[in-house]
Amino acid sequence: LKTEFDFTFADYPSHVLIRDEFPSVNEIIHAFYPAAGLAEELPILAVCDTNTESLARKILGDDNRKIRLLVLESGEKSKSWESVETILRAAVEAGLGRDGLFIGIGGGVTGDLTGFAASIYMRGSRLCLVSTTLLGMVDASLGGKTGIDLSGLKNLAGTFYPAELVYLPLAALYTLPEREWKSGMAELIKTAVLDSGEFLDLVKKLTFLEEEGRNSSVYRECLKECISRSVAYKGRVVEADPKETGTMRPLLNLGHTFGHALEEAAGLGVISHGEAVAWGMARACKLGLTLGITPPERASEIIEILVNSGYETRTPHPLVKSVDSLMNAMMADKKQRSGHGFGVAKLRFIVPDAESARVVSASDILSGDTLLYKILSGE
Amino acid sequence: LKTEFDFTFADYPSHVLIRDEFPSVNEIIHAFYPAAGLAEELPILAVCDTNTESLARKILGDDNRKIRLLVLESGEKSKSWESVETILRAAVEAGLGRDGLFIGIGGGVTGDLTGFAASIYMRGSRLCLVSTTLLGMVDASLGGKTGIDLSGLKNLAGTFYPAELVYLPLAALYTLPEREWKSGMAELIKTAVLDSGEFLDLVKKLTFLEEEGRNSSVYRECLKECISRSVAYKGRVVEADPKETGTMRPLLNLGHTFGHALEEAAGLGVISHGEAVAWGMARACKLGLTLGITPPERASEIIEILVNSGYETRTPHPLVKSVDSLMNAMMADKKQRSGHGFGVAKLRFIVPDAESARVVSASDILSGDTLLYKILSGE
Repeated sequence: LKTEFDFTFADYPSHVLIRDEFPSVNEIIHAFYPAAGLAEELPILAVCDTNTESLARKILGDDNRKIRLLVLESGEKSKSWESVETILRAAVEAGLGRDGLFIGIGGGVTGDLTGFAASIYMRGSRLCLVSTTLLGMVDASLGGKTGIDLSGLKNLAGTFYPAELVYLPLAALYTLPEREWKSGMAELIKTAVLDSGEFLDLVKKLTFLEEEGRNSSVYRECLKECISRSVAYKGRVVEADPKETGTMRPLLNLGHTFGHALEEAAGLGVISHGEAVAWGMARACKLGLTLGITPPERASEIIEILVNSGYETRTPHPLVKSVDSLMNAMMADKKQRSGHGFGVAKLRFIVPDAESARVVSASDILSGDTLLYKILSGE
Repeated sequence: LKTEFDFTFADYPSHVLIRDEFPSVNEIIHAFYPAAGLAEELPILAVCDTNTESLARKILGDDNRKIRLLVLESGEKSKSWESVETILRAAVEAGLGRDGLFIGIGGGVTGDLTGFAASIYMRGSRLCLVSTTLLGMVDASLGGKTGIDLSGLKNLAGTFYPAELVYLPLAALYTLPEREWKSGMAELIKTAVLDSGEFLDLVKKLTFLEEEGRNSSVYRECLKECISRSVAYKGRVVEADPKETGTMRPLLNLGHTFGHALEEAAGLGVISHGEAVAWGMARACKLGLTLGITPPERASEIIEILVNSGYETRTPHPLVKSVDSLMNAMMADKKQRSGHGFGVAKLRFIVPDAESARVVSASDILSGDTLLYKILSGE
């Protein structure tokens, strides 16, 4: 079982460690500043949110060197410039220079914010992430996407800035709230769908083992293997196509075109990212079925795993007022993400095929709006 | 005389064109979207400031395709996140997608803001700069540094994001206010000092010709050659050391350690960047003299050019209340830029030597504060 990975994303080296336990602060300090003395004031700012504050204090607390900890409000609503500016100002106060270190301790939002701040602080400082959620471990902490929401659009502003060092301590997962757990499981299922039947079988096994609870060592070993496979797959894709200019990285958006629209139509933060992605994957299966790309038994298998994991896959989604609002969100999202595009509708969907998934652009399905309306409404 | 340059800064190609006249909007559109039809709505946002609005309208106005123009307040005070957010929101309204284009028309501040916005919009969009000031042409528009001021610190946040295409239209210079002119001349002199005696002689010739006004064709040819040499030098340095991690790019900070301190002690925006850099170069010469690095005749030559170009080189600087405030700004700046640095003072000065300049770190001059106080106060 592989638990240590050395990736290079574009020019950025990124070392990923899967662990049972949390890293110690001394271990982190030593990794970044091998020559640092014990009593020195260190140019380090740790960032967490209200959910991970006690975890962060546990990691930082046993060190007698002062490391400043900034605690942000938890939740998608914190993914704003205000939070980034708070981090930057705290870094100034903590005396960080160009070689200063930002440590993000938390889930996807904390990682995105800390990463964005680190990437622009003096045009780029050092970055370590301690990922404490399943979503972070299987997706958000890897591959360098940072960002904030703006104008009601998810990740409208951000950078590509992989962390030099990423810890994935499994101990963090066993105290995770159910909603957080579900948010991550969707990305795990997504990765398995993209990777291989073998990985998807492993996820099925995980779901099966979960019925007995998450405490058994069999379950935990299976989870560890899922995370390891997930890291390996995502790392491979991002190494091949770091800035999503090629054909590989777009596949990671399986479920996201529909999912983003759902998140935005419901109001950012109302539906968790993972739940939205899960619902979006079910829509992608339906679209694939209609287009003859997703084999029926494959679509059933994916939707069954989603349902067994407790996801809402029905249409129309109960938390969205009207299918029109969803269509509008998707079209607005399309317009914003792909631009006017010289008359060609550039909206892209990732659709499962027999082996993995493939990209379908809206121009390929220009029975168009009517078809999408059906997929979204279930009519 | 070389007027066209193809640089590669880190991974980013950057094409630089020195011109007598302004580019037409059709030329820009064609460079970025060769397939665009004439009547199409284009995913382009142009940004200028109140100083360059009429120029920008002149460039954009003759096109019947709608290109949205955003006008920012001119001046260093606009170098804030608020401006960047205004640009990002305007880009959303203008329908820019990932392949959308930002055109910055103006000087250093406009370029820094437009570049920063373009670099983070959807994690990186397209960027064209039309530089309209001498400072922009010889320095700011080249080499990819973008940024905003925060917490009273210049460029505290920013990115490395070279423009794909940079126009340097000399026509813009002949309507430049005197203050703007002086701001750019300082960077031109700086580059000549770093580059060669030949280039410095050319700058002396330019200063000499300027006494007859800036309208003669001899003067304008000389200026063009100065800009061409400046672009060639800076491009060479940034290609060798794009992210200032090596030994080359730090040289471009000649005059800046003292200059930034002066800007911050006087209050951001009170003294122009170039005037501060000129004053800082005079200080660097004094420091170099004291340390025996700058030959006396070299120091005299540089200071004479600065004085002849109308710069304040005296100590203490008349716009700074006390030398202490300057020392404090420099030390704060030092702390912020280089961090705690494990006990070693990492403040660096660039000091002219016989041929070019070299880096002197504060630890090399740790008679230290007393010496710096003398350099700043002139006592």
